[in-house]
Amino acid sequence: MSTPKSRPSVSHSFVMRLTYPNRIGMFARLTQAIGKLGGDLGAVDIVNPDAKRMTRDITVRARDAEHMETIVATVRKMKDVIVANVSDQVFLLHLGGKISIQNKVPLTTRDTLSMAYTPGVARVCTAIAEDPAKAWKLTIKGNSVAVISDGSAVLGLGNIGPAAAMPVMEGKAMLFKEFANIDAYPICLSTQKTEEIIETVAHLAVGFGGINLEDISAPRCFEIERRLQERLDIPVFHDDQHGTAVVVLAGLLNAARLAGRSLAGYRTVILGAGAAGTAIAVMLQHAGVKDIVVCDRHGIINGRTRTDLNEEKKQLAAVTNPRRLSGSVEDALHQADVLVGVSGPGLIEAKSLRRMSAKPIIFALANPIPEIMPEAAAGRAWIIATGRSDYPNQINNVLAFPGIFRGALDVRARRINEAMQLAAAHAIAKCISPRELSPEYIVPSVFNREVVKQVTAAVTAAALRTKVATRAR
Amino acid sequence: MSTPKSRPSVSHSFVMRLTYPNRIGMFARLTQAIGKLGGDLGAVDIVNPDAKRMTRDITVRARDAEHMETIVATVRKMKDVIVANVSDQVFLLHLGGKISIQNKVPLTTRDTLSMAYTPGVARVCTAIAEDPAKAWKLTIKGNSVAVISDGSAVLGLGNIGPAAAMPVMEGKAMLFKEFANIDAYPICLSTQKTEEIIETVAHLAVGFGGINLEDISAPRCFEIERRLQERLDIPVFHDDQHGTAVVVLAGLLNAARLAGRSLAGYRTVILGAGAAGTAIAVMLQHAGVKDIVVCDRHGIINGRTRTDLNEEKKQLAAVTNPRRLSGSVEDALHQADVLVGVSGPGLIEAKSLRRMSAKPIIFALANPIPEIMPEAAAGRAWIIATGRSDYPNQINNVLAFPGIFRGALDVRARRINEAMQLAAAHAIAKCISPRELSPEYIVPSVFNREVVKQVTAAVTAAALRTKVATRAR
Repeated sequence: MSTPKSRPSVSHSFVMRLTYPNRIGMFARLTQAIGKLGGDLGAVDIVNPDAKRMTRDITVRARDAEHMETIVATVRKMKDVIVANVSDQVFLLHLGGKISIQNKVPLTTRDTLSMAYTPGVARVCTAIAEDPAKAWKLTIKGNSVAVISDGSAVLGLGNIGPAAAMPVMEGKAMLFKEFANIDAYPICLSTQKTEEIIETVAHLAVGFGGINLEDISAPRCFEIERRLQERLDIPVFHDDQHGTAVVVLAGLLNAARLAGRSLAGYRTVILGAGAAGTAIAVMLQHAGVKDIVVCDRHGIINGRTRTDLNEEKKQLAAVTNPRRLSGSVEDALHQADVLVGVSGPGLIEAKSLRRMSAKPIIFALANPIPEIMPEAAAGRAWIIATGRSDYPNQINNVLAFPGIFRGALDVRARRINEAMQLAAAHAIAKCISPRELSPEYIVPSVFNREVVKQVTAAVTAAALRTKVATRAR
Repeated sequence: MSTPKSRPSVSHSFVMRLTYPNRIGMFARLTQAIGKLGGDLGAVDIVNPDAKRMTRDITVRARDAEHMETIVATVRKMKDVIVANVSDQVFLLHLGGKISIQNKVPLTTRDTLSMAYTPGVARVCTAIAEDPAKAWKLTIKGNSVAVISDGSAVLGLGNIGPAAAMPVMEGKAMLFKEFANIDAYPICLSTQKTEEIIETVAHLAVGFGGINLEDISAPRCFEIERRLQERLDIPVFHDDQHGTAVVVLAGLLNAARLAGRSLAGYRTVILGAGAAGTAIAVMLQHAGVKDIVVCDRHGIINGRTRTDLNEEKKQLAAVTNPRRLSGSVEDALHQADVLVGVSGPGLIEAKSLRRMSAKPIIFALANPIPEIMPEAAAGRAWIIATGRSDYPNQINNVLAFPGIFRGALDVRARRINEAMQLAAAHAIAKCISPRELSPEYIVPSVFNREVVKQVTAAVTAAALRTKVATRAR
């Protein structure tokens, strides 16, 4: 297992304010030193030059936090150079938070105040009291989603708690706004107890048009989602499960299209039996895939041979693994066509891919370090997709959830059902034309604005067809 | 008791699109008809004129909903006039809600996406996980307030439930933004049980810098606020109680200043023993007022003579009413200097004011119809203040809560204590100079932007002085 050095990136970029003697050769010395350490030089601004000393802001991209520190320390040690300030670009961007509230009308006159607040607002309240469905139209409910987390499974960071989860939930709210013009608000919960989460979300949901659960660990996430959906008449959608599953299915649909085969016939191995792995298995079954084998860190999930399975995994075992395989991941991979990894960094060795069928399709989705790096899979994998933006075929939830929620809100859907999710996956896949399709291009770019439109239309139609919509679009 | 007809206002304004034969005299006929009914004509726009027919949008202000309907019905009946459309301006303003989310940086490039969301955001999460206090700086927490209601005591409408309360809470969020640049989000709760409200708010509070409780009925509001404040390390502030009390005190401070007397010596009667009445009593005591008598609809609150008092009223009786008065409101008013009404429309008759001392100060704050209309009090009251914008001396919470929360957030206060509330009241009062002060001008205008600045500064200083601030400004 090898985890390669990552490349310098904007997520580790910083600005150094440097002051040094204003003489020929000094700037070159500086940039050479930074370059030698592997730092990637960005913008260079002159802040304050005079005859004697020069002050510049130099933007540098590093590989990671340690690399950043090494570069700064080296520059600090350089003769005649003063590091006046170091500002981390990512932290700067987060100062004061990333979202804000905007009033749709200014309250600068008596008239607007009387209409938006007392006394005028009382008539709107009365109208909703008489017909609560009017809240969809006369309040933010119709365009709002609560992004809710308990901070128990945040990114690859694990159980870091609700306060530390806030930057991710705020980022998610930004994605909702940017990609689907949905007003989402981040709410992190200071409890990780299933019952308390259900009660809290059920009590606060009335003003929202949908609930997006985020980064809640398995197996609690399954029960929380199921019971909240039973209780509420708005969609409850755990994005780590279903958002991921939708985009994975979209990618596999295009892989099968490219191979000229039916997806249904693919022998599929899923590595990882948490929130995402479970949802992917269910979604692929709904898409017709017959032979799915799910593995966790102890090997193949098999209800008869494994005694360590929790209730959720037992249920999963009961509906998957039709050939009753048991053993290790290696055993599962024998003659498999597809491997979907939603587990951890470097868990798949290149030689394991040799056990697979002729044109193996590998989705190595652990983030930021995949189960196998694309370089290592090259030559063996026919198609490789990851969660990363710096390789082809990025499997990114942002292709799915904005359009799914946009569609659901547009028709005031009571839930986001299987049909809507399948429709979303097909819509994403179809954003790539047969002519464009290639092993390195099976999912559209996250910046392809056509995706959200197509997903919205497909989800809306599916909601109407399956009668979970409460109004026509 | 007389409740006078209200005047035509923008909170009952509507636009009629009228089509009629394009001939001289038609428009005059229309405006005469509307004027005769008491409708107040506003903007008149030409939509589509041709040789034969004219189409105009006519804005009319009515007194109330019934008045609106009468005007429309009358116009509909006019010969040759077609009412193509009627749009209610207040409802139009509410369509789709009144607030939205705004991203502080656009997510249109790979770079911003990598910094605001994965992978860059992970470093910010880690920093907060290591030091949760950093959430104040690196997330919206430091500038955000949750506006929370259970819909049990909304405006004068009573228990209309959480969905119908949303327009008020959204309006409140707008006020926070407009007056103090605070990002407030409305959260309505579908429970009215004390324990459930406390649990829900306690669980969702971590991402907020303050909690503004709103329109929760007494006596539950007292326990909910107290226990939440004990549990949370951010301010929990029930605005119906303390916001009102602060502005009432500000007005009384100026009334006493104008009279050249000490407020402490004023015999004060409070009519209404709910959330606002109780908080006003407590606040006035903190400001030094000795003789306070509180009445509810059954008369003077006296622990010995009344057997119908709940626990909260018993406690209130124990600390007020030093002369041990009993009986009716009329009895309480004998030789009183101040009457503060926070009860219901028209509950005070003009002749009752004759029982009071020489220069009675009347705060008749029931909304929209005060306990006594200023016209009826004229000649007897020395000063009269109401909650209305169409009379002098409007007692409006918006003078208090934006600056109070701004100050609390600026120093990351753990609570909004008495000292901060007293400081806010004095700051509001001082916004009117001795030269400006008059019986018709004891509280500043809600549009006086100096108020929020002064309140913020005073609250900040008080928080630092009383050591509830967790950082210097």
